[in-house]
Amino acid sequence: MKYRTLEWLGDENGFLRIIDQTLLPNQLAYIDLRTVEEVWEAIRSLRVRGAPAIGIAAAYGAILGLQESSQNAVALGTRLARVCDYLGTSRPTAVNLFAALDRLQEAFQRQVERVGDVQELRRMMFDEARSIHDEDREMCRAIGEHGAGLVPDGGAVLTHCNAGALATSEWGTALAPLYLANQQGKKFTVYVDETRPLLQGARLTAWELAQAGIETVLICDNMAGQVLREGRVQLVIVGADRIAANGDTANKIGTYGLAVLAHNHDVPLYVAAPSTTFDLARTDGTQIPIEQRAAAEITHFMGKSIAPVGIRAYNPAFDVTPARLITGIVTERGIIRPVTASSVRAHFCSPG
Amino acid sequence: MKYRTLEWLGDENGFLRIIDQTLLPNQLAYIDLRTVEEVWEAIRSLRVRGAPAIGIAAAYGAILGLQESSQNAVALGTRLARVCDYLGTSRPTAVNLFAALDRLQEAFQRQVERVGDVQELRRMMFDEARSIHDEDREMCRAIGEHGAGLVPDGGAVLTHCNAGALATSEWGTALAPLYLANQQGKKFTVYVDETRPLLQGARLTAWELAQAGIETVLICDNMAGQVLREGRVQLVIVGADRIAANGDTANKIGTYGLAVLAHNHDVPLYVAAPSTTFDLARTDGTQIPIEQRAAAEITHFMGKSIAPVGIRAYNPAFDVTPARLITGIVTERGIIRPVTASSVRAHFCSPG
Repeated sequence: MKYRTLEWLGDENGFLRIIDQTLLPNQLAYIDLRTVEEVWEAIRSLRVRGAPAIGIAAAYGAILGLQESSQNAVALGTRLARVCDYLGTSRPTAVNLFAALDRLQEAFQRQVERVGDVQELRRMMFDEARSIHDEDREMCRAIGEHGAGLVPDGGAVLTHCNAGALATSEWGTALAPLYLANQQGKKFTVYVDETRPLLQGARLTAWELAQAGIETVLICDNMAGQVLREGRVQLVIVGADRIAANGDTANKIGTYGLAVLAHNHDVPLYVAAPSTTFDLARTDGTQIPIEQRAAAEITHFMGKSIAPVGIRAYNPAFDVTPARLITGIVTERGIIRPVTASSVRAHFCSPG
Repeated sequence: MKYRTLEWLGDENGFLRIIDQTLLPNQLAYIDLRTVEEVWEAIRSLRVRGAPAIGIAAAYGAILGLQESSQNAVALGTRLARVCDYLGTSRPTAVNLFAALDRLQEAFQRQVERVGDVQELRRMMFDEARSIHDEDREMCRAIGEHGAGLVPDGGAVLTHCNAGALATSEWGTALAPLYLANQQGKKFTVYVDETRPLLQGARLTAWELAQAGIETVLICDNMAGQVLREGRVQLVIVGADRIAANGDTANKIGTYGLAVLAHNHDVPLYVAAPSTTFDLARTDGTQIPIEQRAAAEITHFMGKSIAPVGIRAYNPAFDVTPARLITGIVTERGIIRPVTASSVRAHFCSPG
C-alpha cells in the first residue's frame, strides 16, 4: 500500500498517525494524535472509521491515555478504566471499539497479579495494542488469500460501501481478495456503488482501488441492477457489520437489495469478514438491531439542503441479508459455503 | 395545485411563464419566457423538464418564434420550420419535444392549403399549442381517475424519480392517482426514492407531495429494499419514458432494480403513462436504446468533486423493466393488466 490508514510511531511513549478520512478523496493528509482526547475526537468525527480501524485506534488511544504518569499499578488500572470508559463514548455503537478496550483491560487484570511495576505494565499494554493491530493485518491477509481465487480474471466485480484498507489496518476485508488478485497479476474491473447517504464507495473505495492501480468504475447505487443485468460482473463482494449464527449478515444499507439482484442474475455474492464479526449468540438476522440515523444525512449534502425544508426521511444505516442469498462467507479461516447454521458452526469448531 | 409548472398568459401574442425547477426545492420562482431563445435555454438548462412539460413548452416556444412579423403564409411556414429545427436542438433525446413540434408543423401544412392570412394562421398554431397543453391536462386527470383506486387507504406507496405535476401540465402521471386519492380523502404515506444522480425524487417529488399535504418520507435509492422488506408499502408506482409493444418499460435508472425487489416482496408495481409513451414499433425492451450520460453527474455534486479526480463512472440514464415484473400500466384509457403484448394491443384497439 502507498499509504497507511493508521500507524503507531515509537515505543509506548510514541503517538498515533492516521489519515484524516474526512478529507478524502480530495486530499491525502495525515494527522498525528498525541492525546486520548485527540483520538476520541478522530473517532467521533469519522477521521478514522471502519470497525477494525476504530478498534485499533481506540487501543492506541488508551495507550496515549496511560502516558501521563501514574504513581503505582492501582492508579494505572484506575486510569486505564477511566480512559476506556471515555473512549467508549466516542462511537457507542461500534462493537470493535469495545472489544479492543475490553481486551486491554482483561490483559491488565491478568498481568497486574504478577507485575507491579508501572513502566512494565505500560509496556505490556502497549504490546497488547500492537497485537490487536498485527492480528488485524494478518486477518486481512488471510481473507485475501482465501478469497483471491474468487476474483474473475478478465472479468469484473461489484462492491458496496467501504470494507477496504481505509477501514482496517491494511488491505481490508471485502477488498483484500481484490488487492491480492491484483498483485497476482489478474486483470479485472471493479464497479463501486457510491453508497448513499455518506458516499463511502465514491469517496473511499474508489480512491483506494485507484491508488492500487485497479480499474475502477463508479456507479450510483440504483445502477447496480442494470450493471448486473448487462452481465458486466461475475462476483459481488461486500463486508459485514455483524453476522448471526445462521449466516444472516448485517451490512451497510443497500446490501440486501444488491443481494436480491445478484441472486436474480445468478451472480455469486460473497461476504468477507473476520471471525470476530460473527455474533453467535444471535440465532438469525431478526435479532440484529438496525441503527437508525439522522434524516439530515439524506436531506443535506455538504451542508446544503437538497430536499424540501422539514421533509421527513427514513435512514436505516444497515440492512440484513438472509443467508440464502449469500453464496459464501470468507473469513481468515477459510470460506463458509454454503451458508447455513451448521456450516457456520463447523467453521468455528474445526481445528483450523 | 398551488402552483403551475407552466402557463401561457394572453393570446397568441402573449408569453410563457414557468417554474424555474433548477431552484427547487429551496425556492419557488417563476420566470417569464418571451422569446424562442429563452424557451430553448429553459429546456436546455432543465428549468422545465419532464417529457410532457417539455413538449408543451416547446409548442409554446414555437408560438413565440412566430410573433416576429412574417410577410406571408410561405414566409410564416419557413419561419415555423426554422423555429422547430432550432427548438429540437435543445434536448435532442426528448421524444415529446419532437412530437409536439411535428404536430404544429402538420397542423400548419393542413391549414395553409385553405387559409392564406398570416394572422389567422398564427392564431391556428396557437390553438394547436393550447390543445397540446389541454390534452396533457386531461390525460393526467384520466390517469388519476383510473389509478386512484390502487392507492391503499391507511397504507403507503413508493415512487421513484419525478413523474408528477412538475413533469407535466398538472397532476403528473405516476403521481396523478396519488393526488386524486388524496383529494378523495384517503390517508397514505409516500416513500420517495431520492433518485441519484440528479435527485429528482428529493428535489421535486418530495416538494410536490409536501405542497399537496401528502405525508412524504424521503429515502435513498438503496433503502427501497429494506422499506419493502419491512412491509411498509403496498404499492409501487412509477412513470415511463418509453414502453415497447409487449409492455417492457424504459424509465429512470433504478426502476428495474426496484421492480425486482417489489416482485420479490409481492408488492404490486404499476407504471402510469399516457398512451403516447408507447412505442409500438419496438416489439420489446431490447429495442429501446439506453441514453448514457456524463460521468460528472455522478462524480460531482453542486460543482464539487465527491470522488477521486479522474475516476471513471458508468451513468446509464434509464433501464428497462420487463413486462413480467409490471403488475399493470395505467394510461388515460384505463389499466392494462396483466401486461402482455396482447393486452397492450387490445388496449389500443378497443373502442374506448
